[in-house]
Amino acid sequence: MLIKEKVDQAIGILKEYETDCWITFVRESGIMRDPMMDYLCEADMTWHSAFIVTRSGETHAIVGQMETRTVEEMGVYGKVTGYVEGIKKDLLGTLKALNPATIAVNFSETSEACDGLTHGMYLTLRGMLAEIGFEDRLISSERVTSSLKARKTAAEVQRMQKAIGHTLEIFSLVKDFIAPGKTELEIAAFMTAEVDRRNLVVAWDPTHCPAVFTGPDTAGAHYRPTERKVERGHILNMDFGVKVDDYCSDMQRVFYVLEEGEAAAPEEVMKGFDTIVTSIELARQALKPGVQGVEIDRIAREHIVSQGYEEYPHGLGHQVGRFVHDGTALLGPAWEKYASKPFEAIEENMVFTIEPRLTVPGRGVVTIEEMALVTAKGAQFLAEPQKELILIG
Amino acid sequence: MLIKEKVDQAIGILKEYETDCWITFVRESGIMRDPMMDYLCEADMTWHSAFIVTRSGETHAIVGQMETRTVEEMGVYGKVTGYVEGIKKDLLGTLKALNPATIAVNFSETSEACDGLTHGMYLTLRGMLAEIGFEDRLISSERVTSSLKARKTAAEVQRMQKAIGHTLEIFSLVKDFIAPGKTELEIAAFMTAEVDRRNLVVAWDPTHCPAVFTGPDTAGAHYRPTERKVERGHILNMDFGVKVDDYCSDMQRVFYVLEEGEAAAPEEVMKGFDTIVTSIELARQALKPGVQGVEIDRIAREHIVSQGYEEYPHGLGHQVGRFVHDGTALLGPAWEKYASKPFEAIEENMVFTIEPRLTVPGRGVVTIEEMALVTAKGAQFLAEPQKELILIG
Repeated sequence: MLIKEKVDQAIGILKEYETDCWITFVRESGIMRDPMMDYLCEADMTWHSAFIVTRSGETHAIVGQMETRTVEEMGVYGKVTGYVEGIKKDLLGTLKALNPATIAVNFSETSEACDGLTHGMYLTLRGMLAEIGFEDRLISSERVTSSLKARKTAAEVQRMQKAIGHTLEIFSLVKDFIAPGKTELEIAAFMTAEVDRRNLVVAWDPTHCPAVFTGPDTAGAHYRPTERKVERGHILNMDFGVKVDDYCSDMQRVFYVLEEGEAAAPEEVMKGFDTIVTSIELARQALKPGVQGVEIDRIAREHIVSQGYEEYPHGLGHQVGRFVHDGTALLGPAWEKYASKPFEAIEENMVFTIEPRLTVPGRGVVTIEEMALVTAKGAQFLAEPQKELILIG
Repeated sequence: MLIKEKVDQAIGILKEYETDCWITFVRESGIMRDPMMDYLCEADMTWHSAFIVTRSGETHAIVGQMETRTVEEMGVYGKVTGYVEGIKKDLLGTLKALNPATIAVNFSETSEACDGLTHGMYLTLRGMLAEIGFEDRLISSERVTSSLKARKTAAEVQRMQKAIGHTLEIFSLVKDFIAPGKTELEIAAFMTAEVDRRNLVVAWDPTHCPAVFTGPDTAGAHYRPTERKVERGHILNMDFGVKVDDYCSDMQRVFYVLEEGEAAAPEEVMKGFDTIVTSIELARQALKPGVQGVEIDRIAREHIVSQGYEEYPHGLGHQVGRFVHDGTALLGPAWEKYASKPFEAIEENMVFTIEPRLTVPGRGVVTIEEMALVTAKGAQFLAEPQKELILIG
């Protein structure tokens, strides 16, 4: 069971970072769900609930009494305590007994996936801890939760590989559907129907997954498909992923719609395509444990600029896992919005996208997105990368 | 369009509470979505984004540049600003120009639906505001957001009435499916299939919506259906709701499975049923603008105890809206976990559940859940309440 595996992994990470105690403190997780809940408890909890994991290997769950049975039956927690009126007595009693030097909780300015504790819940927890003089023991769990999210187990990678398999199959099917006169919306609908047929769900907001962009002057990214029609001479690109057992794929493929009489894409389109393929391969070769994402981004970005294109207005790639944008370490430039993410060290078993883009004026946007697993020996693509521009006849 | 209607309502509420400026500050809302986003922007935002509404009626959205077109096309915001590297410059520039005395943001110890700002994002915002000396202007938006959630517009009530209509129809269909020997899981599956057939989704976590409990010794609430079989002499109760256009229903109905030769439920079952029906009606009669939820809970609770039953281990009822547990004001006892919720004044256009329960030993749990709208003249049920115990032959 994945939760048991991740909780055991968390204990190891707490030892490694010499962190005594990690608390995930939630309520009404059906309304807003701390991303860490996925590694701790599948069911949503209604009332104030604390999932506690310690460096010494203890695991406690303190939850509303009506939800104890659900948590007990997971078989993950050494001790499950239920309460009726309020969590404070049981929570403080447990913490006094543990007497941890530090109490790591889920907040982070850098990393949204490690920032599941709301400000109101932080104030509540801090107020309770003040009653036993523990309030200054609170620290951010960012290092712990980043590593827990980032270090994919074999079971997690396998789920993502399945999602990637479906994604590539659907790209392959839609190739024969794309034709001059088809709209972006029709192409997206074809793909969505295939997702439904496979009993899957798309990996992000279904209003723009898949995202389909044909020709020049599109929004280019993060926008819904429109009534715009495929025309000969267009570059068409799409961004798409599915979830398998809660794990995502996130990939982009690029197509060219041949003009009448053309047997191949024109030179300026091929140059753009080759530039993207090369920049991805240069990035993959540099991506290995210990380097920083800012360096990988720089390699791809400089290659694109060296070929005479504008630089892309986003990071080169992000981690993927339960969310399409997952984890802390990022392949990106030193921009304010990325905070310290581009400077986090790359670790083994992280999974990244590599997704540079460039514009070919009058034709459209060339963008490819591959997914790569970081191994001790370097990064390997999780599927065959796009090496040929897909031609629509 | 509902978002436009709710943003206009928010401006009125800001005037009423003399609050200059309300900011909803989010990032990666696909990972954790501030509940207020549903009233401000349907699409998820990737990068740091600020939705600003002022008492004077100004509306600003500051979002990542790749997402400006999505926000502009909503036609709700007077000004939409896109950025590439980071939000700080545009956000501080806008706030300096507005120069609000207070800046309300979404945190609340009391109310989870008003607590969408994460602690990391709070720290980021506070840090930015400190650069222009505005950090002490931050206040909780709880009053504003509570009222915005609680004061249902006609369009919102209409959506909930549609959800209630489907719910009662499905209860009516499942009545003919329930029979001795059927398992809780089979009964739940029958209902789920009907939800699918109607192209709806259930109102909460599908692992326990519907929740079905037959006979004595069940978990009683907040637990998944099991392989337990319906037997003659059981009380069977179920908790179920659906969403229509993002608005929920949440209702419970109770059934009795006749013994061979029985034409009616035995006396102890009828007494339990009548006690619940009466306690709901007493609560409804007392529920009106200006009273506190703690008082309504006390009326139902005391009636049940007066008939010789133990008191129920939860609140009498909660608000319903986009979430099944929605809003701040609650019909509940003065327990720690409910914080100040039971002491919030009831207002016109709130929608509450009323859902007391009691146990009939050896038979099961009697529980009915009705939904009522608070009007100026008092509360009215949003559908015909259960007045007869449903008998299974």
